[in-house]
Amino acid sequence: MAEVEIGIGKSARVGYDLAAVGIVPSRRTRDPADVSLAWQVDAYHFDLPIVAAAADAVSSPDTAITMGKLGGLGILHVEGLWTRHEDPLPLVAELAGLPAEAATRRLRELYRAPIRPELIAERLGQVRDAGLVTAAALRPQKVRALFGDILAAQADLLVIHGPAVSAEHQSTRTEPLNLKRFIGDIDIPVLVGGCASFSTALHLMRTGAAGVIVGVGTGGGDANRAELGIGVGLATAIADAAGARMRYLDESGGRYVHVIAHGDLRTGGDIAKAVACGADAVMIDGALAAAADAPGQGGLWSMDVLHSDLPRGRWEPVERAGTVEQILVGADLSGAVGGVSLAGALRAAMATTGYATLKEFQKAEIMLASPPIG
Amino acid sequence: MAEVEIGIGKSARVGYDLAAVGIVPSRRTRDPADVSLAWQVDAYHFDLPIVAAAADAVSSPDTAITMGKLGGLGILHVEGLWTRHEDPLPLVAELAGLPAEAATRRLRELYRAPIRPELIAERLGQVRDAGLVTAAALRPQKVRALFGDILAAQADLLVIHGPAVSAEHQSTRTEPLNLKRFIGDIDIPVLVGGCASFSTALHLMRTGAAGVIVGVGTGGGDANRAELGIGVGLATAIADAAGARMRYLDESGGRYVHVIAHGDLRTGGDIAKAVACGADAVMIDGALAAAADAPGQGGLWSMDVLHSDLPRGRWEPVERAGTVEQILVGADLSGAVGGVSLAGALRAAMATTGYATLKEFQKAEIMLASPPIG
Amino acid sequence: MAEVEIGIGKSARVGYDLAAVGIVPSRRTRDPADVSLAWQVDAYHFDLPIVAAAADAVSSPDTAITMGKLGGLGILHVEGLWTRHEDPLPLVAELAGLPAEAATRRLRELYRAPIRPELIAERLGQVRDAGLVTAAALRPQKVRALFGDILAAQADLLVIHGPAVSAEHQSTRTEPLNLKRFIGDIDIPVLVGGCASFSTALHLMRTGAAGVIVGVGTGGGDANRAELGIGVGLATAIADAAGARMRYLDESGGRYVHVIAHGDLRTGGDIAKAVACGADAVMIDGALAAAADAPGQGGLWSMDVLHSDLPRGRWEPVERAGTVEQILVGADLSGAVGGVSLAGALRAAMATTGYATLKEFQKAEIMLASPPIG
Amino acid sequence: MAEVEIGIGKSARVGYDLAAVGIVPSRRTRDPADVSLAWQVDAYHFDLPIVAAAADAVSSPDTAITMGKLGGLGILHVEGLWTRHEDPLPLVAELAGLPAEAATRRLRELYRAPIRPELIAERLGQVRDAGLVTAAALRPQKVRALFGDILAAQADLLVIHGPAVSAEHQSTRTEPLNLKRFIGDIDIPVLVGGCASFSTALHLMRTGAAGVIVGVGTGGGDANRAELGIGVGLATAIADAAGARMRYLDESGGRYVHVIAHGDLRTGGDIAKAVACGADAVMIDGALAAAADAPGQGGLWSMDVLHSDLPRGRWEPVERAGTVEQILVGADLSGAVGGVSLAGALRAAMATTGYATLKEFQKAEIMLASPPIG
Repeated sequence: MAEVEIGIGKSARVGYDLAAVGIVPSRRTRDPADVSLAWQVDAYHFDLPIVAAAADAVSSPDTAITMGKLGGLGILHVEGLWTRHEDPLPLVAELAGLPAEAATRRLRELYRAPIRPELIAERLGQVRDAGLVTAAALRPQKVRALFGDILAAQADLLVIHGPAVSAEHQSTRTEPLNLKRFIGDIDIPVLVGGCASFSTALHLMRTGAAGVIVGVGTGGGDANRAELGIGVGLATAIADAAGARMRYLDESGGRYVHVIAHGDLRTGGDIAKAVACGADAVMIDGALAAAADAPGQGGLWSMDVLHSDLPRGRWEPVERAGTVEQILVGADLSGAVGGVSLAGALRAAMATTGYATLKEFQKAEIMLASPPIG
Repeated sequence: MAEVEIGIGKSARVGYDLAAVGIVPSRRTRDPADVSLAWQVDAYHFDLPIVAAAADAVSSPDTAITMGKLGGLGILHVEGLWTRHEDPLPLVAELAGLPAEAATRRLRELYRAPIRPELIAERLGQVRDAGLVTAAALRPQKVRALFGDILAAQADLLVIHGPAVSAEHQSTRTEPLNLKRFIGDIDIPVLVGGCASFSTALHLMRTGAAGVIVGVGTGGGDANRAELGIGVGLATAIADAAGARMRYLDESGGRYVHVIAHGDLRTGGDIAKAVACGADAVMIDGALAAAADAPGQGGLWSMDVLHSDLPRGRWEPVERAGTVEQILVGADLSGAVGGVSLAGALRAAMATTGYATLKEFQKAEIMLASPPIG
Repeated sequence: MAEVEIGIGKSARVGYDLAAVGIVPSRRTRDPADVSLAWQVDAYHFDLPIVAAAADAVSSPDTAITMGKLGGLGILHVEGLWTRHEDPLPLVAELAGLPAEAATRRLRELYRAPIRPELIAERLGQVRDAGLVTAAALRPQKVRALFGDILAAQADLLVIHGPAVSAEHQSTRTEPLNLKRFIGDIDIPVLVGGCASFSTALHLMRTGAAGVIVGVGTGGGDANRAELGIGVGLATAIADAAGARMRYLDESGGRYVHVIAHGDLRTGGDIAKAVACGADAVMIDGALAAAADAPGQGGLWSMDVLHSDLPRGRWEPVERAGTVEQILVGADLSGAVGGVSLAGALRAAMATTGYATLKEFQKAEIMLASPPIG
Repeated sequence: MAEVEIGIGKSARVGYDLAAVGIVPSRRTRDPADVSLAWQVDAYHFDLPIVAAAADAVSSPDTAITMGKLGGLGILHVEGLWTRHEDPLPLVAELAGLPAEAATRRLRELYRAPIRPELIAERLGQVRDAGLVTAAALRPQKVRALFGDILAAQADLLVIHGPAVSAEHQSTRTEPLNLKRFIGDIDIPVLVGGCASFSTALHLMRTGAAGVIVGVGTGGGDANRAELGIGVGLATAIADAAGARMRYLDESGGRYVHVIAHGDLRTGGDIAKAVACGADAVMIDGALAAAADAPGQGGLWSMDVLHSDLPRGRWEPVERAGTVEQILVGADLSGAVGGVSLAGALRAAMATTGYATLKEFQKAEIMLASPPIG
């Protein structure tokens, strides 16, 4: 790993964002019809490696059903608006009519309503009734309080997600969750993150998680670099986590832990690059929040809005595009960037560069782009 | 080749765009009158190393004739509008009056008209009747269907062009074209591409092609990096292909395969840099689509519009400049950037830096520019 | 230290700005309540490592009191408007109503009023009467003339600050201040700077200073890079000074000299990065000048305005944000960037990345971000 | 010299622009009054290392006199408007009232007027009558035709300037000027350039030139990179030429050839950086064309306008600043960037970083700035 000395006595690795990366075509090309985008977490098979973020502007019971039917996965945040309000959609709809600052104030109010356990069961039930995999998300600090309700609601997958989650949280005022013991004790597969380094990813893998979410932040505008100074280029974070996956595969005697990339992934090209860096799947925020049928209804905000001491989520307007279906798999102009759907572009990228499966595509050659000249 | 480790277990080469490159003057200067811009493909001699892209917004029978008379080459795409419509010009003219999205929809409709073989003969005949070299382009998947018509039309050169073409296309649903056998069986020289790596270029050279087109994309706005995540800096792609040319020259006992650079080449300076990186000639899109007499009539679109599953071409407005002649060889203000014609600037660059022929200029010293400071 | 040869016979180190740096989360996370932001200069303890710049647009007696009460430190410039005018606030208020150039002219006039020693005592007295640490700043060339007044005013800390201060000023027309002798002779701790290299920082530490201010410039818009060509990336300057601190700790047998970073620090993330590069505390200009209760009242200017031969300070408008308190420690929307206060963001950054004290945080792993792609 | 392989079989050096460079303060500071900006060419002493470009928008007899009186040097281009028109000022004044393209057309017409030898004598005489050093510029291809007139006009210095000048121009249609023989035959010192590499600079030094002008282009907007693809970062070009100066000093047994940097030098900081990279003096275009009393009268154009085959100069509007005097040595708001004069900023940069003479300042430590993060 290349280290640069930034000054006397302080060195740094160089990290790369996905924007710095391009995929190099191999000497083969493939028929797009022969390309498979499938992956699997435990017993659950998915046709598309695309997970809608556990963020209220992106995932509602309805969009989780849409995602599931199309081969992806939607996740419900059990600390979100759908478990606090009987019908959050009209409440969210009001936000777009307010000035941005007032929308943020109102948004924060909406999160002060108490979580209603019966709504957890009801919302997950909607997805299960559609015959689809149900996934419930919450923050590490709420696992003890809310896991019983999630279990009762018969979720298939549990997602433990915070801006930066470690296997070793330390606090003098509360007894932190022992992730390893907790995951060992339960029966459903757990996805956990975000994280952004080889060692954190490896430690999270050792807790028994089925997948780790790579990328620091909880979705929406990523405030971590600008506001907190925390930042690891996503291409590097993915490659490091893929390195941890390899190490853990060896030390565990063959347990494969999935790496789910989560960051500013906007286009099918971004998804292709994430996979080529080593990801098994991706978690999408903004590109899905743009959907005409997204629950954010023209707005996007980070789940940092849940933070009690330092609420950081703010309502931001989002330019609307086509429907979730068009954005995910559509083939006409109403889709995402350039009229190309996320899955369609990923498939085209794999066919054009000559790869038939995601596992093969993880080994694609990549090239860093030289910086532009002013 | 310098490799950078972008994370644990994933390395990448660094690729350079032409924008990162500058040509270093040698210790000689030359009289521009002594500079030759000539090159040759098989028996065909050209005074200028400038090929108009096989794109409907750039090349029509009329502009191919203009290009040819000025010493360059125009290519007709036999899957394009000129072989689907008796008179495409008024149809294209309408597009500029529509909103961009409607123009794209209408554009796609225009490509749904069937190809009329008799028009292939008629269009190529126009160029041949002017006493000029005729070149016909098509995509690899249409070679079998359309080659007979092209042969009947007595094309001098065949151009097989797709966003990324390999010598080894794989498909389980169709029998892919065996490029090597096909090229071996026919009598006319073939230019084939795009490609973007040493090994793909080398494999394409081994098919017997007379030239390879370097640069991933089919012209118009290059959507490959943004939408598909595919990207190799053009300076690096050209240098790699020139390396393959050297290798193939050795292994074939002296067969010289031309490297034709195709990317966002806008100015004579871009062309000069492409040659200094190793190109024999360049293929131009946007700079020619800007011509007052360009068939795009103020619009530009990529031939990806032909893709049946994932149509990506969209109509985009282009700011008009002078005529094709002024842009190519003019010496007054109506020409391209800064009033300098493409050929004039290339000639001036070679004279100023001290090179008399394109082959010498390929060996010019180049310098990478350091990144700008914000 | 990596050296790059920029040409034959001239090499250069590569310096990094804070913008190029991101903090890497460790494999631990921490409860924000367990994070301490405290530091200490001599006998003076501060809850926050944040010092308001010795600049008239940032620090007045009132804001120094606010800063002190919140756990930070405000510094009064004894060559500034508060010691030249009985009531500078209405005079400054007028500036915002003038065209920028006229405001600058008027600003320079305001600095032509003589310094009134009795005001030095009065202004510092206000802060002392509030039970807070008093700090007085002046330029090296005025130490002889004004130190008596500062001493009489019973300042707790002395700040000797210029755009670039060295331990070895040379002049043939005046006898330069011998910093080492001066600091040896006086009883109060001295902070001195700006400086921007290992050797200057080390020499300043050897004068007996309690702290060195790292960063070339005197606040406000940093004109040094653009106008004078002087520039050292702040991350590198901080790391170099931290290296000098280590060296001096060794050669002095254990004297710890504080490194105070001063540059374009706008957010809590910038502060976090400065500490992670090795700083003990930071000096803030613009982010505090934006306060509703800042003495600049919507304007910001550099104390270079004091330069007699080459006055460089100019009045520039500043967009107003919340109060000093909200910007420093607030937790609602009226605070700084993204509604996150400087101290709150620093605390969150440390908790998220797993560090409990500033000294531990100085050892955080950092990562350089790859350049963006155009 | 670091080489980067940009692709298989093509390597490149990395070149740095002045924008990538910052000067590092030494551990000393100096009194600005002790800083000397003087330099000398042969018998001619100058108080300031600042030469006004031999460009009609910058240098007229009047501004050459102003430059000379202030300690700098102005150069008259004997192929310019001042030797073609009795009174060019009203003709140039008209240009600002025309649309840019019409202004360029009219500008080119103005250069079609014949050169009047008697005006060469008259214009240079004006400067000489003011008791100042006279410098006359022309292109290499016109030396034979016009040198007699320049000699008759008793110029003190001769400047042979083109976009890229070599000691080895080759032409089959004309007998090129043998620079070495020509310079050996004449009695007045010659400055020659532009050039941009170690070997070209060394060869030009071997012709007996008193100075070489480093930087490819003839002033005004530098079209060479954008239009011709020629480009060498100026910091690298200066350092390389300084390396050639060192080599030639050795091989000639002590002949010191001056390096005059010419490029997009806008501020005193740019000048400081050029000197810190190794320049003895600088040639300024745009920053002086902005003067209220500049002959360009609000317009700037390159002397490439003289090119007969490929005229590249075009009239471009320039935002007006203070007078030549204010820009060069003024100390108030009417000067250049930030109200700081070119010489004042250079002096301040040297004092702040601790250097007393230009020769010492050439050895200043410099630092490359890391690229910005988007």
